[in-house]
Amino acid sequence: MENIIIVGAGLVGSLLSVYLARAGFKVSVYERNSDPRQINMQSGRSINITLSERGFKALDAVGAADVVRQLCIPVYGRIMHAQDGELTYQPYGNNKEAIYSIGREDLSKALISFAQKHENIEFSFNQKCIDIDLPTATLKLQNLKTGEITQVQADRIFAADGAHSPVRHKMQRLKRFNYSQEYLEQGYKEIIIPPGDDGSWVFDKNAIHIWPRDNFMLIGFPNLDKSFTLSLHLPYEGEISHDSTASGDAVRNLFETYFPDIWLLVEPNLTDYSHKPVEAMVTIKCFPWSYQDKVLLIGDSCHAIVPSYGQGANAGFENCQLLTKCIEQHPGDWQTAFREYETLRKPDMDVLADLCLEHFTVLRKMVGDPKFLERKKIERKLQQMNSEFASLYYNISFTCMSYSEALRIERIHQEMISQIAENNIKREVSV
Amino acid sequence: MENIIIVGAGLVGSLLSVYLARAGFKVSVYERNSDPRQINMQSGRSINITLSERGFKALDAVGAADVVRQLCIPVYGRIMHAQDGELTYQPYGNNKEAIYSIGREDLSKALISFAQKHENIEFSFNQKCIDIDLPTATLKLQNLKTGEITQVQADRIFAADGAHSPVRHKMQRLKRFNYSQEYLEQGYKEIIIPPGDDGSWVFDKNAIHIWPRDNFMLIGFPNLDKSFTLSLHLPYEGEISHDSTASGDAVRNLFETYFPDIWLLVEPNLTDYSHKPVEAMVTIKCFPWSYQDKVLLIGDSCHAIVPSYGQGANAGFENCQLLTKCIEQHPGDWQTAFREYETLRKPDMDVLADLCLEHFTVLRKMVGDPKFLERKKIERKLQQMNSEFASLYYNISFTCMSYSEALRIERIHQEMISQIAENNIKREVSV
Repeated sequence: MENIIIVGAGLVGSLLSVYLARAGFKVSVYERNSDPRQINMQSGRSINITLSERGFKALDAVGAADVVRQLCIPVYGRIMHAQDGELTYQPYGNNKEAIYSIGREDLSKALISFAQKHENIEFSFNQKCIDIDLPTATLKLQNLKTGEITQVQADRIFAADGAHSPVRHKMQRLKRFNYSQEYLEQGYKEIIIPPGDDGSWVFDKNAIHIWPRDNFMLIGFPNLDKSFTLSLHLPYEGEISHDSTASGDAVRNLFETYFPDIWLLVEPNLTDYSHKPVEAMVTIKCFPWSYQDKVLLIGDSCHAIVPSYGQGANAGFENCQLLTKCIEQHPGDWQTAFREYETLRKPDMDVLADLCLEHFTVLRKMVGDPKFLERKKIERKLQQMNSEFASLYYNISFTCMSYSEALRIERIHQEMISQIAENNIKREVSV
Repeated sequence: MENIIIVGAGLVGSLLSVYLARAGFKVSVYERNSDPRQINMQSGRSINITLSERGFKALDAVGAADVVRQLCIPVYGRIMHAQDGELTYQPYGNNKEAIYSIGREDLSKALISFAQKHENIEFSFNQKCIDIDLPTATLKLQNLKTGEITQVQADRIFAADGAHSPVRHKMQRLKRFNYSQEYLEQGYKEIIIPPGDDGSWVFDKNAIHIWPRDNFMLIGFPNLDKSFTLSLHLPYEGEISHDSTASGDAVRNLFETYFPDIWLLVEPNLTDYSHKPVEAMVTIKCFPWSYQDKVLLIGDSCHAIVPSYGQGANAGFENCQLLTKCIEQHPGDWQTAFREYETLRKPDMDVLADLCLEHFTVLRKMVGDPKFLERKKIERKLQQMNSEFASLYYNISFTCMSYSEALRIERIHQEMISQIAENNIKREVSV
């Protein structure tokens, strides 16, 4: 039986271990952090993941979807909070289609527990990858509890070790390795709003809440424990920015001016706000994703995206499924399998990365840009008139169509919308 | 007197040492290679640099241009070699403007010798930078002859340590450091053609020779020793590629088919061809270029470009001049000086990087693309009709106008040319 090492027991590493174990391989997973099931997360962070159609499909294929579904809150649309407190509801689909909000920790724990039921999967925690020898697929590990350094070798290594991947860092020095890391000029800080006095969610729990303010925004996700996680997205520098809101007074002033409807809920939960780091958002692209038939990058390690589209985990899960298909189609010929996988998937992940950057702007401008809102109105009308006319968001979130195909269709739709909008203007002018 | 360390005694490092010494600083330059003046280069490589107006201006400002000029061969235009042996001459300007071909080694030796005449500049060779502590501006060096490891500290470090800069590698791990490395799908191998039987250059020495073949090309530069350096640019893989010309027979076949006019000159000089590595071409972009007021990247370490425009050294020299100006405008306030320099210069270097990529395609297509040649013809006519109508190549090579401004003008010109070309077609159709 071939030995496979996976670096990283995050969402993608855990699910990949299941896929590979079921394909008949012996899998060892090394994770630098502690077992998330044994520690009490006191980081004050509560990252939300959204799962949608393609994510569930990839979980379903290995029987992992049911345990995950229990931890999710269905979300049927967005509720926009205008500056004057007015609320606008935008459903994601016309037939109560939902995306699913889940805590990253909950999802991670569930996947590790699910994977551990397979006898050919072994997890080792607190094992930091400090070096890799690519040609021999040998990993140098340091036990972060004991300091002990060991070496492990396998037939192949899969690096699901995240955006700051030490494995990719080694591959970056290879000749002709293309690589880019691009940070957004904005970052975010999280504020947790506990359940209300009646022990329930303080907002409608079946929606994502957005306070779009053009160049900045607040966004809120429901949690299973009836709390809400708010993320305050601001530029790092400038008039309204993380820099300019370093003091408590400045934060109060920001909320009272731009988010007055939520200030009373936010105020009691700002105690550690100024000490929290600003979370950065980065887009990482690289190619190739593989080193010979020995090492393959997967997940954020080769295509980290900004979180605005809620597709990171979904794409990562889909990748586990696609990769396993490529491996099974070329039994024993790993180089061909890796080449096929990376060639098939790279264009889609590039499209998704760019869509995420664009969607970050779209979300911030959801209220206030009349031209944009006019186009959205036309889009919804077209959808109602013709059920085959699906929005980009719909095709990304509620189908398993490739991201490239979704973009191709979107371009045709946008052309149509432009023509209609132009005709509308002409009609208005002539009236 | 402030102590400054420069990492790298290449073209930019050497010239920067002169600029900084003349501005009153004590400068120590550490270079990983041996002193190029003490070794006999037997690498079989003869890299050509072209110097143009802006490069000379930056050399002139510190009195370094005269020693350099003696090592140059003026080049007044391109000679295109068609597949049937027909030659076409394209002058660079209408008034015998020239760019200057010089051997990289010659230029490097001249600059180091020139720098060493300044008593506050000290060079140390065979000193490899193995680590840097950014906050304290401390460099860890290994003497590659003795193996000895030492640490040196300065008030500030300037990293002119090239495209694979170890200093930048350290900065890449900083939060919000944007970085990209993008390799071309093509690489090149060099072939040296010695002087002819009469001891003179085998081609017109006052021209760059190009054999453009659309997806690949051969390009030749004159050397001071009366040899020519040919670079054979091919895709790495595919029907006509480095892969497909690994054998001597395949190389002969390639030349006999596509470069028949030069095969007899090339054949005797191919003895080590198959053992030569394919040289890769990379574009590197990053930002910021500085770390606080302590460390600054300069030259290829922060903006490596592909060599097709012959602007690498020129831009690097111009940067030494601009940086010194920024430092002198903010005496003692290094952080402001660094910020001003990088903010001013980044847009221009981005423009140049993109122009170089485009020009690589332009050079390869110089013969054979009728639409492209039609546009070139219109461009030359406009130039003859109006002396203020200067081509992009002219503004880049024969003026010191910023690269961004040159691009802005070029866009207007291309719009004009499109209109004229369209009218030409209409006229032809109606005739």
